[in-house]
Amino acid sequence: MTTPAIRFVLVETSHPGNIGAVARAMKNMGLAELVLVNPREFPHPEATARASGADDLLATARVVPTVQEAIADCGFVLATTARTREQYFRVLEAREAAGRMVAEAASGSGAVAVLFGTERFGLSNEHLLTAHALLRIPANPEYESLNIAMAAQLIAYEIRMAQLAIQRRGGAAAPPRDVPLATPRQMEMFFTHLEEVMNESDFRDRTQSGTHLMGRIRRMFNRAELDGNEVNILRGILTSVQNRRRRAGQANENGS
Amino acid sequence: MTTPAIRFVLVETSHPGNIGAVARAMKNMGLAELVLVNPREFPHPEATARASGADDLLATARVVPTVQEAIADCGFVLATTARTREQYFRVLEAREAAGRMVAEAASGSGAVAVLFGTERFGLSNEHLLTAHALLRIPANPEYESLNIAMAAQLIAYEIRMAQLAIQRRGGAAAPPRDVPLATPRQMEMFFTHLEEVMNESDFRDRTQSGTHLMGRIRRMFNRAELDGNEVNILRGILTSVQNRRRRAGQANENGS
Repeated sequence: MTTPAIRFVLVETSHPGNIGAVARAMKNMGLAELVLVNPREFPHPEATARASGADDLLATARVVPTVQEAIADCGFVLATTARTREQYFRVLEAREAAGRMVAEAASGSGAVAVLFGTERFGLSNEHLLTAHALLRIPANPEYESLNIAMAAQLIAYEIRMAQLAIQRRGGAAAPPRDVPLATPRQMEMFFTHLEEVMNESDFRDRTQSGTHLMGRIRRMFNRAELDGNEVNILRGILTSVQNRRRRAGQANENGS
Repeated sequence: MTTPAIRFVLVETSHPGNIGAVARAMKNMGLAELVLVNPREFPHPEATARASGADDLLATARVVPTVQEAIADCGFVLATTARTREQYFRVLEAREAAGRMVAEAASGSGAVAVLFGTERFGLSNEHLLTAHALLRIPANPEYESLNIAMAAQLIAYEIRMAQLAIQRRGGAAAPPRDVPLATPRQMEMFFTHLEEVMNESDFRDRTQSGTHLMGRIRRMFNRAELDGNEVNILRGILTSVQNRRRRAGQANENGS
């Protein structure tokens, strides 16, 4: 059983051995789609050695320069993190996250992606902001940092357990969504549009710098898990705000 | 949170790096008790390197020559295996096994042990026969062989999830057993006793060789998860059979 619709995205992995170990962990649990964002060394003999019999996943792994490209065709996106005090994000434990992934993979919103950061620093804040939710493994609080391949193994296992639970009760994963989740590109265009309107209207938040503010706004809308129609509605509102402002500007220039 | 009552036993591990990775995986999930049966190389720099911040588990790991010694003070014993066609064993999936382990650790029967075999061959049949049940990770049937440290990570995770589930509902793990499980030594003495009686009574099973037969008998009684009293009852029966036979022998010698 393979599940091409759930994808693991390794971001700037330092040790090629870890890439191989992740490939093996995925295949052990029936996952097949691996994307590498700007890996330090790949292909590499150590990756092949650690992949053991899963070198087919390495052979078909896509290597891309950015996270944006890795998730361009995705609906639901999760970011793994060991940090527990991330404010304003939705945080799902691995088991619950796996249930959501299996449901979203069946929802018709495109592939589901799980992002894994670098061995030393995890994912950057910018990368966390591309995700609908953070995925947390409930580890020992006194020693929480899992090896990246171990984290991948646990998440792949929970995905398989969620799939098996559905198979065993003979049901379907989930009803398809009426409208697919907004694509990462639609979300980017929305955020750009929103920021544009904020600038045009001289909006300033006195409590936060511009970057912090946009991060907070992104987390807020990511939590909402907007579908394509909802993004269109919001962008329609933004456009009408801009049009009204332009008409007002023209009217001003015309001396009214 | 540490759980000294659940112990991982690594049997004749070949690669010291795997020992270190298991130590880290255990500590990540709040487990602390590691026993090494006749490891090929230990201590070893690669074990320390892979243990990362879990070198305290390596420092306190006990090294022993036999599985018998590793589990001497244990009640419930599980053996990990990837083989799925083991007949006459009880087989538990990792999640169910973890629930049982947490319950048995609280039952007053002594420590709980999980046995892990060698990287290439797993556990020997002899080692499987020391366990109450086999633990199976429900992996992809087309590529089932997990790295030993990955298997340890998944099992440790399920143990932690089982503990957290109990904590979260604010309950106790399980009521203590009225009588603790029989110790491995009690079981050994029972099997020796039973075999003695079988020999004395010239019992022969025409379908199986002696070794196979005893293996089958062991699996049968291991599945029963006998407590100390039950073993005493069975041994009492064996003793009375022996006494009766001896009395009959003496009577024969006396010419009756």
